[in-house]
Amino acid sequence: VTSARGWGDPTADRGLHLGDGLFETLLVRDGRPVRLAAHLLRMRASGDALGVAVPPALEEFAADALPALWTREGRPRRAALRIAVTRGPWSGLEPDDGGAPGVHVVVRALPDDPPPPAAAVVLDAPRIDPRSPLAGHKVLSWMDRVEARRRARAAGADVALLRTVEGDVAEADSANLFAVVDGVVVTPPLDRGVLPGITRARALAALRATGEAVAERPLGGGDLDRATEVFLTSSLAGARPVRSLRDRPLAAPGPLAVRLAACTLDS
Amino acid sequence: VTSARGWGDPTADRGLHLGDGLFETLLVRDGRPVRLAAHLLRMRASGDALGVAVPPALEEFAADALPALWTREGRPRRAALRIAVTRGPWSGLEPDDGGAPGVHVVVRALPDDPPPPAAAVVLDAPRIDPRSPLAGHKVLSWMDRVEARRRARAAGADVALLRTVEGDVAEADSANLFAVVDGVVVTPPLDRGVLPGITRARALAALRATGEAVAERPLGGGDLDRATEVFLTSSLAGARPVRSLRDRPLAAPGPLAVRLAACTLDS
Repeated sequence: VTSARGWGDPTADRGLHLGDGLFETLLVRDGRPVRLAAHLLRMRASGDALGVAVPPALEEFAADALPALWTREGRPRRAALRIAVTRGPWSGLEPDDGGAPGVHVVVRALPDDPPPPAAAVVLDAPRIDPRSPLAGHKVLSWMDRVEARRRARAAGADVALLRTVEGDVAEADSANLFAVVDGVVVTPPLDRGVLPGITRARALAALRATGEAVAERPLGGGDLDRATEVFLTSSLAGARPVRSLRDRPLAAPGPLAVRLAACTLDS
Repeated sequence: VTSARGWGDPTADRGLHLGDGLFETLLVRDGRPVRLAAHLLRMRASGDALGVAVPPALEEFAADALPALWTREGRPRRAALRIAVTRGPWSGLEPDDGGAPGVHVVVRALPDDPPPPAAAVVLDAPRIDPRSPLAGHKVLSWMDRVEARRRARAAGADVALLRTVEGDVAEADSANLFAVVDGVVVTPPLDRGVLPGITRARALAALRATGEAVAERPLGGGDLDRATEVFLTSSLAGARPVRSLRDRPLAAPGPLAVRLAACTLDS
């Protein structure tokens, strides 16, 4: 169930024709967007880095849009809110300096419960280029993630884990990656081209607060072969346990995922 | 001047929210799309490779859309026609199997004359990954090209030349690349992740037909330092001479660009 509301003509939008813009996906719980301010702060930081003007009134726009979308859709307990901001109308590869930004908001109902533990596969392609100026930003050019998920599904798994062009494993197709290796909780550092996940940061803080040994360092394939627990973090699913990795079964949920669930990362 | 016409709700479209789809850009000369069939053939081949269903009636749809767009825009001698095909409504990262494809067509007037010779720079990022499943396809996730052009402009140039992750120079931000090196016309082969350009193929055929020595092989930075003529091929600009490369001036148009102009590649 999807409902949409926009600003500007979407048919001619650079977001549609060039994937030229930014997005955020938020959990909406009982009609309230969760951590909207943190998401828009991240979007503004990406806008500064990539020269995309993020309208100042975006927070109000998103809040205003929700009641209209609910009217059409009812109000599910959990929903996903997608906010896309673009550089405005298509005028070829180069943005039109005078073009007003496009803002397009979609909401879709989610099941009442978060998704179950995931079967994951590590893909050899598509790969993340940590030197790409787009790496680490939620850009509308997201088809490599769609293709990664498609390949994971074709391999009988639920999610794909992506390597960088240097071969280390950086993140999942739509979540950050954590693995317990030799008793240390490891997650790849931001300079591996991974997204600066809001839930990733909250999970790191929660783990450190409980005295857990935590390291932000690159994950090699050997690390994953040795991992005793693996989980993924995202705004929609919180800390999602991985139940198998390249056909190797893992305890799911493991002890850390259970502890993080108690921290209600997704609220 | 832009005019747009679509099929499906673009505000909720996966093309807008994920850059999940394919596009073609055609020259329209005196109201007639140039080589529409060849462009749609390429789009269908990409659709087969990436699992994007390209509607069968697309040729008629594009032809039907033009008169309506002209009514609003007048009929310029030269125009650019953009056709975007998507996997339909946004439903998260995974396509909804039942979703009807989105088709969105935009037209914009071009100046009467093709663009003048270009100043080019070679960028170190963004880079092309020849192993990417998206490489060589005109996917709606095109923001790396937008960013490349932005960086070229910031460096005082008109267009960017892109390297692969292995370091060879593969193509321009929106055109294929040809260089005359040691008397041989060199263009990177398709396995370097470059687009299978329709104008590229026509230029290769025209050069071979006139007895020119032609090689499809990777271009190193040293090759470009030695090149005596460089030009770019695209549907909108035909064979466009490069007048400078990293501040080194080049004869523009060179003899091959002059010869190719006589072949009216853009018709």
